[in-house]
Amino acid sequence: MKQIYVIGIGAGDPEQLTLQAVRALGRADVFFLLDKGEDKSDLAHLREEILRRHASRSHRVVVATDPDRDRSVATGAYAPAVDAWRRRRGDLYQRLIAEELADGGCGAFLVWGDPALYDSTLAILEDVHARGAGDFDWTVIPGISSVATLAARHRTGLNQVGRPVHITTGRRLTDGGLPDGVDDVVVMLDAHQAFTALTGQGLHIYWGAYLGTPDEILLSGPLTDTLAAEIRTTRAEARARKGWIMDTYLLRRSPRGGPT
Amino acid sequence: MKQIYVIGIGAGDPEQLTLQAVRALGRADVFFLLDKGEDKSDLAHLREEILRRHASRSHRVVVATDPDRDRSVATGAYAPAVDAWRRRRGDLYQRLIAEELADGGCGAFLVWGDPALYDSTLAILEDVHARGAGDFDWTVIPGISSVATLAARHRTGLNQVGRPVHITTGRRLTDGGLPDGVDDVVVMLDAHQAFTALTGQGLHIYWGAYLGTPDEILLSGPLTDTLAAEIRTTRAEARARKGWIMDTYLLRRSPRGGPT
Repeated sequence: MKQIYVIGIGAGDPEQLTLQAVRALGRADVFFLLDKGEDKSDLAHLREEILRRHASRSHRVVVATDPDRDRSVATGAYAPAVDAWRRRRGDLYQRLIAEELADGGCGAFLVWGDPALYDSTLAILEDVHARGAGDFDWTVIPGISSVATLAARHRTGLNQVGRPVHITTGRRLTDGGLPDGVDDVVVMLDAHQAFTALTGQGLHIYWGAYLGTPDEILLSGPLTDTLAAEIRTTRAEARARKGWIMDTYLLRRSPRGGPT
Repeated sequence: MKQIYVIGIGAGDPEQLTLQAVRALGRADVFFLLDKGEDKSDLAHLREEILRRHASRSHRVVVATDPDRDRSVATGAYAPAVDAWRRRRGDLYQRLIAEELADGGCGAFLVWGDPALYDSTLAILEDVHARGAGDFDWTVIPGISSVATLAARHRTGLNQVGRPVHITTGRRLTDGGLPDGVDDVVVMLDAHQAFTALTGQGLHIYWGAYLGTPDEILLSGPLTDTLAAEIRTTRAEARARKGWIMDTYLLRRSPRGGPT
């Protein structure tokens, strides 16, 4: 039996590792890292730093090239395109576990944030396991998500008293706006700044980029045209300077429970 | 200036503490603990264990009695009742910070899970600060929530590909059912097992109690009358045995992305 750890490593601050994650990092024989062909070298360095500090002396790193994913598809074709990409990634994981991990060995996948939020590792491992491919078991170690980090850095809760929180994507916010009956919406994976279409509606925004890292940027306030433009400009400049950006934000319908 | 840490200490496993939380625990001079008058002695012991392992040798613990909260109110009166209780708790925090923390000292509030989810500490500190009461600043250290723990223990994601996640309360689920357009709903604070009214609708449930602790119980599967009854019975027996229960669950509309 092979053992796999799926380890949430936090949003970008190595101090966000849990003691449980540190222990698992020290136990793994092989780390499977995916080269996504993106210029996120800061994140790659952070990950190396985490391994340098916490992995065992005898660990190996296997870098695999992530299957290409067609990101240019229309909204309706999004899920099928992701499905096809997930199958190819499943083939890759199956090969990694079969060829790079010895019987009785322990492998690890490192996931930024929390493996349960907008990450495909768990679903892909489940697919591979369901194929009957390889005798392995896996354990999930939860991590501090960018959502939790955003809220912590803005020192605000995600929900108002007895009220729901909705976590969604930029694409869905663009298509449907804020859902009815929800006052707090966290938006992930928003490459097109969907919030700019929601100014002047009494919303408050808490925005953050590179959360947990030394480059962290935070902006918040009533979502006016001015603030929307400021976030857009800040984001574009940071992205141009660093070559990549990861950002997320909370939209709140009522000012209650947050700084105004 | 006084410094306050609001430290997320995870869902119940001391190994879920982050390195950042461990560092903050070691820095605090005074820990403010609230005696909620409930019989959750296991949690109290866990908290003591965390302090024993990570707090500085010279730390002090101040135990304050939590203001009574009227939990018997009708749905409509819920928010106002919480407001009144929060004001009283604000008075308490103000007094603790004024009388129990020296100038230049460092105090800490420990919060189970993540301070951003269904916890009032941040809102109350903000209220107290807005009163102009006391010269203090505060830092929030995110924690592993029971939501992240639930997903990790069931080895499932919270969202399906490109889809939203909704986090809500048992009360709201009873009142409104599953929101439209949402396939994944996490339910917190459900004392009345709202899921029992949603059997036979093709839902899948991932339920967990005492998450992260040695008493952890996990149940999952298609939400049939049989499984709903099993969860209800298991929950009632565990609660009777231990004197308290903390549980949460994920309802998923489609089986995709999770074990079936």
